[in-house]
Amino acid sequence: MESIFSPASCATRCNKSFSMTQSQSASRSSTQRWDFIELSFHAPPSAGGNPFTSQPFSATFTHLHRGVRVDGFYDGRSSEGQDIYRVRFMPDTLGEWRYDTHSDKAALNGHTGTFTCIAPSEGNHGPVLVRDQFHFAYADGTPHVSVGTTCYAWIHQPDALIAQTLETLKTAPFNKLRMCIFPKHYTYNANEPALFAYERDASGNFDHTRFDPAFFQHLERCVAALRDLNIEADLILFHPYDRWGFAKMDRESNHRYLRYIAARLSAFRNVWWSMANEFDLMPWLPMQEWDDFFRTVQESDPVGHLRSVHNCRGFYDYAKPWVTHCSIQHSAVEQTAEWRDQFRKPVVNDECCYEGNIPNGWGNITAEELVRRFWETTLRGGYCGHGETYLNPGDGRGHDVLWWSKGGVLHGHSAPRITFLRQLIEDLPSPKLDPITHLGPNALPCSGVAGSHYLVYTGYRQPAELPFKLVGDTHYKVDIIDTWNMTITPVAGTFSGEFKLVLPGRPYQAVRLVKA
Amino acid sequence: MESIFSPASCATRCNKSFSMTQSQSASRSSTQRWDFIELSFHAPPSAGGNPFTSQPFSATFTHLHRGVRVDGFYDGRSSEGQDIYRVRFMPDTLGEWRYDTHSDKAALNGHTGTFTCIAPSEGNHGPVLVRDQFHFAYADGTPHVSVGTTCYAWIHQPDALIAQTLETLKTAPFNKLRMCIFPKHYTYNANEPALFAYERDASGNFDHTRFDPAFFQHLERCVAALRDLNIEADLILFHPYDRWGFAKMDRESNHRYLRYIAARLSAFRNVWWSMANEFDLMPWLPMQEWDDFFRTVQESDPVGHLRSVHNCRGFYDYAKPWVTHCSIQHSAVEQTAEWRDQFRKPVVNDECCYEGNIPNGWGNITAEELVRRFWETTLRGGYCGHGETYLNPGDGRGHDVLWWSKGGVLHGHSAPRITFLRQLIEDLPSPKLDPITHLGPNALPCSGVAGSHYLVYTGYRQPAELPFKLVGDTHYKVDIIDTWNMTITPVAGTFSGEFKLVLPGRPYQAVRLVKA
Repeated sequence: MESIFSPASCATRCNKSFSMTQSQSASRSSTQRWDFIELSFHAPPSAGGNPFTSQPFSATFTHLHRGVRVDGFYDGRSSEGQDIYRVRFMPDTLGEWRYDTHSDKAALNGHTGTFTCIAPSEGNHGPVLVRDQFHFAYADGTPHVSVGTTCYAWIHQPDALIAQTLETLKTAPFNKLRMCIFPKHYTYNANEPALFAYERDASGNFDHTRFDPAFFQHLERCVAALRDLNIEADLILFHPYDRWGFAKMDRESNHRYLRYIAARLSAFRNVWWSMANEFDLMPWLPMQEWDDFFRTVQESDPVGHLRSVHNCRGFYDYAKPWVTHCSIQHSAVEQTAEWRDQFRKPVVNDECCYEGNIPNGWGNITAEELVRRFWETTLRGGYCGHGETYLNPGDGRGHDVLWWSKGGVLHGHSAPRITFLRQLIEDLPSPKLDPITHLGPNALPCSGVAGSHYLVYTGYRQPAELPFKLVGDTHYKVDIIDTWNMTITPVAGTFSGEFKLVLPGRPYQAVRLVKA
Repeated sequence: MESIFSPASCATRCNKSFSMTQSQSASRSSTQRWDFIELSFHAPPSAGGNPFTSQPFSATFTHLHRGVRVDGFYDGRSSEGQDIYRVRFMPDTLGEWRYDTHSDKAALNGHTGTFTCIAPSEGNHGPVLVRDQFHFAYADGTPHVSVGTTCYAWIHQPDALIAQTLETLKTAPFNKLRMCIFPKHYTYNANEPALFAYERDASGNFDHTRFDPAFFQHLERCVAALRDLNIEADLILFHPYDRWGFAKMDRESNHRYLRYIAARLSAFRNVWWSMANEFDLMPWLPMQEWDDFFRTVQESDPVGHLRSVHNCRGFYDYAKPWVTHCSIQHSAVEQTAEWRDQFRKPVVNDECCYEGNIPNGWGNITAEELVRRFWETTLRGGYCGHGETYLNPGDGRGHDVLWWSKGGVLHGHSAPRITFLRQLIEDLPSPKLDPITHLGPNALPCSGVAGSHYLVYTGYRQPAELPFKLVGDTHYKVDIIDTWNMTITPVAGTFSGEFKLVLPGRPYQAVRLVKA
């Protein structure tokens, strides 16, 4: 038995309160470029054995002379008692594709078929890739100005809270979300999730050789829901905050898990891989093992999604060849340009402290300070991440629901300012900001594209005037931007060469110069 | 001809609009402990020669079996055409002192006499010395909580502006003032001073072998006026901002200048020596020469006043034996404790950026940020310096009068908060704050004296609650302090062991715990 699903059909099958539906019309023989095709095969159950470990199954997808081999995965048993196997593929090229399946199991081997990769619908720009060394763009060339937030454990919360998180994200500034596969055990995170990545054995322990397909179907619905909001799912594969044993599985289980995740999720165009949150707080895993995690993910992902790893204290060496970008935790955002110079890759400072009011130092900076760090990072050529940690009445049962882990609603004041910043950057002639030196203003971050446009930011400084030294004959239109009050005030006339601008003498101002 | 002046008599003699008078009653045969006795001798002028270079003159001051040899100095010609020589001595021990003068010139040699060192008046605590490795105290043991400001070129301004500066200082929080001997040539500093340290020769060039006593008498009146306000004069001996040639004198002239300054000013109890402002911007002076400047000052100053040197970018090695304390320029005030650990001496961050609104990055932070830097520095075991750089209508002739160089009046908002901080520290059971770790609050500076009192500061963080872990059975009274709004709110009851405090959830709060 064989079927081709569009990804849309899953939502119906799972009948959940949120959906992975997207705009494409479901078709059995075509899929959009950068959507995925899913082949499903039912087979009689094996006598004994473990289908997660004993049934290699793959397919080769071919367009003209190019073939892409993709691993399939076991997805549990059907209501008719059949084993379900699936394989997913994201075509990146328009036209006719053919597939052939391969397996030692006769029921899964030798299936062939064709489908058509059709033009993507509006809003489907493909996966995000590195572009121009320090920046990002979607596969269709559309720039991606990364503006992330963090909800580590949002998929481990009740459905109503998950739905509320998605509702919040609809109008929030974020186009990337950091989220864990494994649940989180930490302050403000005591509740037990309903689903886990693994089945329990007879004695109630998690069996690291048997995944629970229901959990992964749930995860996929969440990733699909983000995709439908044009939000990248920055999937955190390991993390230290654990009471269930997932942080200390054996080596074989770790790599089996990575391959299974890659087989299930690589076809989602909005996936980024993060080997860990705070890998350095898992000292029982030697550096060689982190390197191997990267290798396994890179080998198993036919799309080549972005790959990084997030630190607590010391950095992973982002210069290593399998790392696509830096995923940094650091408060000293003024060092952003130095990190670019050091690693020669895009710098994403995913955790520069969160807006909030908890006792922990990583979660109690003001909205003003977080917005300042966003601007500093941006104007030094990097990308900054948001998080929010306000104590709040929460779920009505005495549990604080902090956005940083559980999602829910936003209580703070930084998000609208981050929307303002993102819009401003996206409205530039090019959003790729690289540091510019010798523009004139002293000690302030300046960036832009030489001869086209510049931004200067004052931060906690409050100059009442600023000198500029522009090269060439180009004339520029100038705006004074109040980054906190979100106003843009044009300065009359155009400017070139050396000149001085009068500023309000308040902090958090920016100057925008755009070629007239 | 011979006379003994109390320092008070100079003011009358010079008939200026400000005064070096202090509270002691002038007496020809007694002086207060830590005031100074001045011996003056008139001698017939030498035929030819240069009395600044050719007339060695000194005196030995003896109390019981202890003798202190002190260099005298030439102070110009009297109205009767006589050469005036003086020697000044600050007695540090009560009782009878005797002096003997020594010179190759007969008129200056062999004078003897006695005077009595009497108890100091209230407010005269003696010179400031290092105490308890990282802190300061006056010679009588009174703690000195150093709170400095900067008016580099205030003595080079018109008398009315000098008087206004002194008037401002009367109610300002500062007990130390950084000030240059040589005038300043820099942005906002274009005016020519009335007096210079040197006479000009026939061709109008400064003669580095001939000091102008009138300039030094003016300088001394300024230092005395600060002394009478209980303000330390942090005398900057060299600096790079120069159009007159004082930054590039020859080696012999540099050391002659240092010895002359030491002979004239060491007897003022409120003197600190700073070899330079931004020594590293004078690359024509090798490091060996800076070391030699320290040695010459140390050899020439019988009191042993505090000695340091101020950097622009790289630090001088404050661990060198002739340095008494660090005089740092750095914005990263969070590193204060590391600097203590590195140099094992008091850390004074004299320049962490100034409150103001000029274009220059070192002079345009907000009052909030400067006050934050004061608190951060203080609670990390250091001492912070103030400066102010607001553009303002100035002197009515189109010149900005910025406090940082010219003095005048304060326009900013940090000074009252610095007063509040200083008072708070001085009111503690002991004002010597050393960093305390493991007090509980995460990522916040904590300091105090274990078992007696603690301070914690939130800075730009806004925790709504903070956990504490106090050791021992001691109970503490607790106050929540709003460092910006300058309020102190007691928390009911006493606290010990582990507890949690509710905070306002605003930035710039402090918690004070004092043993009940």
